[in-house]
Amino acid sequence: MPHEQYQTVIKTLHECMEACNHCYDACLKEDDIQMMSDCIRLDRECADICGYFEQALGRGTPFVSVLAGVCAQICEACGNECKKHDHDHCQKCAKACFECAEECRKLAA
Amino acid sequence: MPHEQYQTVIKTLHECMEACNHCYDACLKEDDIQMMSDCIRLDRECADICGYFEQALGRGTPFVSVLAGVCAQICEACGNECKKHDHDHCQKCAKACFECAEECRKLAA
Amino acid sequence: MPHEQYQTVIKTLHECMEACNHCYDACLKEDDIQMMSDCIRLDRECADICGYFEQALGRGTPFVSVLAGVCAQICEACGNECKKHDHDHCQKCAKACFECAEECRKLAA
Amino acid sequence: MPHEQYQTVIKTLHECMEACNHCYDACLKEDDIQMMSDCIRLDRECADICGYFEQALGRGTPFVSVLAGVCAQICEACGNECKKHDHDHCQKCAKACFECAEECRKLAA
Repeated sequence: MPHEQYQTVIKTLHECMEACNHCYDACLKEDDIQMMSDCIRLDRECADICGYFEQALGRGTPFVSVLAGVCAQICEACGNECKKHDHDHCQKCAKACFECAEECRKLAA
Repeated sequence: MPHEQYQTVIKTLHECMEACNHCYDACLKEDDIQMMSDCIRLDRECADICGYFEQALGRGTPFVSVLAGVCAQICEACGNECKKHDHDHCQKCAKACFECAEECRKLAA
Repeated sequence: MPHEQYQTVIKTLHECMEACNHCYDACLKEDDIQMMSDCIRLDRECADICGYFEQALGRGTPFVSVLAGVCAQICEACGNECKKHDHDHCQKCAKACFECAEECRKLAA
Repeated sequence: MPHEQYQTVIKTLHECMEACNHCYDACLKEDDIQMMSDCIRLDRECADICGYFEQALGRGTPFVSVLAGVCAQICEACGNECKKHDHDHCQKCAKACFECAEECRKLAA
């Protein structure tokens, strides 16, 4: 069953989505929000694709590898932006994004 | 922080979404699919609203109680349809839906 | 058929979603982004619920009035925030939000 | 501005999403639903990715070509399934899917 076969990646996608949404929310409350605009934008893109892919895996989508490929790219880009910023939420988000990109690359291969 | 404050409901929404997506996938493979059409339809509605609300909570939406209200109604309806069917995936889904409806009603109050 | 019965509201939801996404994108490029943080946040909430409801209407959701109610509230809130700002994208977005709130209230009644 | 630059593809994605959601809804009401299970499944996948990509384009996503690539593949697969069935909604959906796949391939290139 899909939700068993993909248990690890679903968990990783979920943690990445949560880290991105938390980082997005926290960035919008920062004083230096001007510097965070790319981070806000990428957090949304990344949370949305992770949430999307997690659902698609859970419902047995036939498009696993192609969706994994796009998700890996978006996670990688979001991680690269987040790691530039010292905020704790950005550093945690970068870590979650890179782990998720790694898991997605395995599925895409 | 939203993702801490709402930890229980986020987990419950997530389990409900997974149960609904699994039930949807399994219903589409059943022999008696004709009987399962309402279940398929409601599984999608319920998975989609749970996934939506989970994301909204994670990003600090200001619309918690109104979204919780609509989510509770959709979970309740999906649970009522699922519990009519003997398939293991339907019974498990009904249970997840009712638990989620209960959590959402608390938030909506 | 749902997509015919709800043609007007689907069109209005779609225009509101586009206005919100455009306003979100434009706000993230403004110099006074600090002042726009609530606008960015509400644009995302409003675009997401309008996109969600539009899809739900198109697939014959049984939850029309309850979804219309929550959509009306979110559109109204987003319109109220957008109208505070002089940017052309904010003023246009406010207009689209209020029109959408009006259509949704009719469906919710 | 994104919503102007991508006006044609946004319109095509939107029409494809509507055709898929209508076909999904109509398939669930058909007598020969057993034969339609792949169509129901692919209609959902296709509607969801078109709705997703349309929103992403509207908000200025930096991931246009990679999302266009995955959308093209899913539209193509959905069109190939739909065209097997004589129902008017399936034939119309196949047409919308192939047009959308074509537009997406142009963007992905």
